[in-house]
Amino acid sequence: MQIAFTKMHGIGNSYIYLDLFQHDYKEDIFCELAQKMANIHTGIGSDGLIIIQPSKIADCGMRVFNKDGSEGTNCGNGLRCVAKYIFERHIVRQELITIETKSGIMLAQVVVQDNRVIEVIVDMGKPLLLRKDIPMLGNPNELVINEIFPLPQQSLLVTALFLGNPNTVVFVNAIEQAPLRTLGGIIANDMRFPYRCNVEFVEVVHEKALKCCVWERGSGITEACGTGACAAVVAAILNGFCQKEEEIVVQLRGGDLVIRWADNDHIWMRGPAEFIADGIYEFLS
Amino acid sequence: MQIAFTKMHGIGNSYIYLDLFQHDYKEDIFCELAQKMANIHTGIGSDGLIIIQPSKIADCGMRVFNKDGSEGTNCGNGLRCVAKYIFERHIVRQELITIETKSGIMLAQVVVQDNRVIEVIVDMGKPLLLRKDIPMLGNPNELVINEIFPLPQQSLLVTALFLGNPNTVVFVNAIEQAPLRTLGGIIANDMRFPYRCNVEFVEVVHEKALKCCVWERGSGITEACGTGACAAVVAAILNGFCQKEEEIVVQLRGGDLVIRWADNDHIWMRGPAEFIADGIYEFLS
Repeated sequence: MQIAFTKMHGIGNSYIYLDLFQHDYKEDIFCELAQKMANIHTGIGSDGLIIIQPSKIADCGMRVFNKDGSEGTNCGNGLRCVAKYIFERHIVRQELITIETKSGIMLAQVVVQDNRVIEVIVDMGKPLLLRKDIPMLGNPNELVINEIFPLPQQSLLVTALFLGNPNTVVFVNAIEQAPLRTLGGIIANDMRFPYRCNVEFVEVVHEKALKCCVWERGSGITEACGTGACAAVVAAILNGFCQKEEEIVVQLRGGDLVIRWADNDHIWMRGPAEFIADGIYEFLS
Repeated sequence: MQIAFTKMHGIGNSYIYLDLFQHDYKEDIFCELAQKMANIHTGIGSDGLIIIQPSKIADCGMRVFNKDGSEGTNCGNGLRCVAKYIFERHIVRQELITIETKSGIMLAQVVVQDNRVIEVIVDMGKPLLLRKDIPMLGNPNELVINEIFPLPQQSLLVTALFLGNPNTVVFVNAIEQAPLRTLGGIIANDMRFPYRCNVEFVEVVHEKALKCCVWERGSGITEACGTGACAAVVAAILNGFCQKEEEIVVQLRGGDLVIRWADNDHIWMRGPAEFIADGIYEFLS
């Protein structure tokens, strides 16, 4: 079976995109397709698969499938790419775009130059801070700010929140020494997070700049994670390192994002979205 | 600039292929293209780039560019894919195909079922065993069989030979414990190999089966390396673990190859070649 796809990336966070406005692929293949197409050795190679589809309540809908075939609820870098795609492929004509995701309707604004989308600003919505909303085991109505998180070998201080996905932020003195490879997956799959979580290690450079590296549930270490960058900023503000309403640059392995947590509690993310290739994949189920 | 490409793999050793029979891409972009397209985050993702081009002395020519942009001399898994490509795309009609490479003209035979190439047998030529031909520093007319190879931390026993590329084989008791990650790159870039080398760690399962993992110069750890599998068999025969004229199965991370070192000194490699996708890549130089 032939599958038409587009590959795009946002600061190195790359996905294979399927356009269900044009093609009629059945959803029972998405899980297997994600695993096969994301494999660099025998497939295309990516962090996962994103479905762009018609929506009854927004300009389009999107579904995110991780490398392991599990379905994610949201993806910040993917949102920017979806907005670029539906604008440049004329599925929408206006610069303010609504996108239906598993975590609600997201609003994106494309920045256009010579008919090309060079940057996208996304309203990532409000973070949820209560334990029951993350979700994380323990007192359901408590916040998780700079809380001791015991692990077999050591204890960490974590700040946790929900933003599209459950996120756990650990502040470190130097990003190069963050135990991403050793502890990323352990925290992500810890029993205290019933739905697992993304894990961000964050270094505060100064009050307007953070460095961040991310372990994504279902994908492992990635070049960049949009929701992770937003979670890093929320956690930095909750811990008093940064301030609301300021534009904060988050430096990820794949590039920079600019994040602002507005006074109305909405988080705005600004960053690039890049087209890589269109193609036809030979799917052997 | 738009670049039409095909992605194929041989037991997980994947390359992006450009067809110069159909397209007129200039060779001064190949090095940069290889680096950009091979990158999984911002490009397609592969072990490198292979150019399929017209040849005056064979059915086609091929050039191999590694992930780092350096040009390789040969690629066993790539050869099988090139043979499949030019047969299935009707560049040739016959099942015996000649391919010009940097290390000479190679002969390939496609095994066809329902107009699809399901397997390819490649004459990998004769291995060169003298030190001067590998090349490896030391007495130019000596063989390198089970020779002590001192390294700062430890000494290894190596067998070295040239087969399309310089190859260094180290036998280990258990493939899982092979120091591929720690020593692969160190041996590959050792000063004793003026042109660097591929490094194979090999476990002898029995006299007709080897397990092998490979560090490729310019690419690092790969799923599978055709010339590496051949080098493993030659080294196993030179060391008395296996015999000439026997079909020996080499199990690599990505799958199996069947290798035979014939009495006329030619090495025959048999294995699959798989089509993944066709596409158009947006090249921004």
